Amino acid sequence: MAARAIYTVLVCAAALLLALASPSAGLSLDTVREFLTREEDTIVFSLIERARYPLNRPAYDPIHLGDGDGAGPGRRLNASFAELFIRESEAVQSKAGRYQSLQEIPFFAYRVPFTLAPPFNFTRELYPAAAFVNLNDAIWSMYFNELLPVLANNGDDGNYAVTVDSDLACLQVLSRRINYGRYVAEVKFRGDQQTYTSLIKAKDRDALMKLLTSEAQEDVVKRRVEKKAIVFGQSITSDGPIETSVSNSSQANFKVDPSVVYKLYDQWVIPLTKQVEVEYLLHRLD
Amino acid sequence: MAARAIYTVLVCAAALLLALASPSAGLSLDTVREFLTREEDTIVFSLIERARYPLNRPAYDPIHLGDGDGAGPGRRLNASFAELFIRESEAVQSKAGRYQSLQEIPFFAYRVPFTLAPPFNFTRELYPAAAFVNLNDAIWSMYFNELLPVLANNGDDGNYAVTVDSDLACLQVLSRRINYGRYVAEVKFRGDQQTYTSLIKAKDRDALMKLLTSEAQEDVVKRRVEKKAIVFGQSITSDGPIETSVSNSSQANFKVDPSVVYKLYDQWVIPLTKQVEVEYLLHRLD
Repeated sequence: MAARAIYTVLVCAAALLLALASPSAGLSLDTVREFLTREEDTIVFSLIERARYPLNRPAYDPIHLGDGDGAGPGRRLNASFAELFIRESEAVQSKAGRYQSLQEIPFFAYRVPFTLAPPFNFTRELYPAAAFVNLNDAIWSMYFNELLPVLANNGDDGNYAVTVDSDLACLQVLSRRINYGRYVAEVKFRGDQQTYTSLIKAKDRDALMKLLTSEAQEDVVKRRVEKKAIVFGQSITSDGPIETSVSNSSQANFKVDPSVVYKLYDQWVIPLTKQVEVEYLLHRLD
Repeated sequence: MAARAIYTVLVCAAALLLALASPSAGLSLDTVREFLTREEDTIVFSLIERARYPLNRPAYDPIHLGDGDGAGPGRRLNASFAELFIRESEAVQSKAGRYQSLQEIPFFAYRVPFTLAPPFNFTRELYPAAAFVNLNDAIWSMYFNELLPVLANNGDDGNYAVTVDSDLACLQVLSRRINYGRYVAEVKFRGDQQTYTSLIKAKDRDALMKLLTSEAQEDVVKRRVEKKAIVFGQSITSDGPIETSVSNSSQANFKVDPSVVYKLYDQWVIPLTKQVEVEYLLHRLD
């Protein structure tokens, strides 16, 4: 995991060779908010899907899997089944050109040609020298150490491939959502260049963080994702009523505990996004 | 595509070498219904996610992609980007042991060792000589030719890898849901062996189909999936109301047209599932 950050920088740097020198003007506060709101649905769907499967702990234990004869890839590479599966899946997606779009950042790095697809000339909305910023290492660690244990029930049904495939879906959308802080920061910077420029030059992280924080807006987001977990995670019958609030319904009825989704945003998604925004801004004048 | 059916049979036959001679008794009408109902949520989620992206037609055109120099894999293999991507993704999942579970059937075939995971001793609930039955070719064709054109809006944003990754998610759950007809048929057979045995011996497809059909139950399912498309595909605000019926809401408000989901079940999912059931039963005494 330690080498991943360096590799990711290399991959992003390579992608940036394709980038236009000046960012496009297609980005606005409205389009950014719309994107982030839509990502909430994808995040809740992906959590609900992961929660279908039990924890399946052996998939995350480097000692356990791929090691039938003591010389399997798990022990040899000191990697878990989950890590090996995600590496191989990301490699296929890299060949297919997924990471040509700067919105997508792999957890591992691949220097493979796009043999499945020709290059596509994506609009480049980020400032090239700051676009490499990402928190994938923190997201990886948060997902497996903090979120997954409260998301999945204990148990082992052997369906490691489908389970880890659903982990990858969660990781990909969380990475895209949190690292989208680069786009948020770019829009905010363009909206008030003078203020941001002086704070960036002063390397004043605290003042930048304060400027980027709107507790009222964050509260709206947290209550909305909790509601999405309620609405999307309920059992629908062809005639029955539909749950609309947390208060009058038992958490046991939902496929994912709505308070877990609230906490995910409160403790990780929102703070990590703002951390991405600050790091991006600190490179915005490079 | 023509060779796929044969290969799939080979793969299923290989998987069956691991199977117990007699199916387990863990299956019941309740567990089967519960599984099918839960799959509806996954199907609706996957359709909503695919509908995020435009049609991205070049991804499905064998001539267009992977062919920058006229000798790319697309033209050489007469395969589209979508087919190449799905082949490579399924190969990784096969290495990871996904298809050890008879619930999962690949669209393409892989004779790769499970290098990422050791074999897992799954419960075998199907009758071995009939477990190979599947309609993946019909599902593939239905998905790309019938469903996708009404699911995605016209347009091309270049995000072919994420788009086709979301196609794969749709195909996998539709395949699992429809081919789950094998489990439905197994349960029904065990519930009335005498009647089914005489119809199977007489190879009376029409009478089997009639026996497997409950229009009232099918109507409940179709109305329920339409409602799920409404509930899961609406825009949720932190305070606003939640849509609960088709009549008082415009279809334009939903991420996937609920009538498309109704039609998917009416014209394809339910009829194809029953076709799987009949084919399975016709091999149930082999």
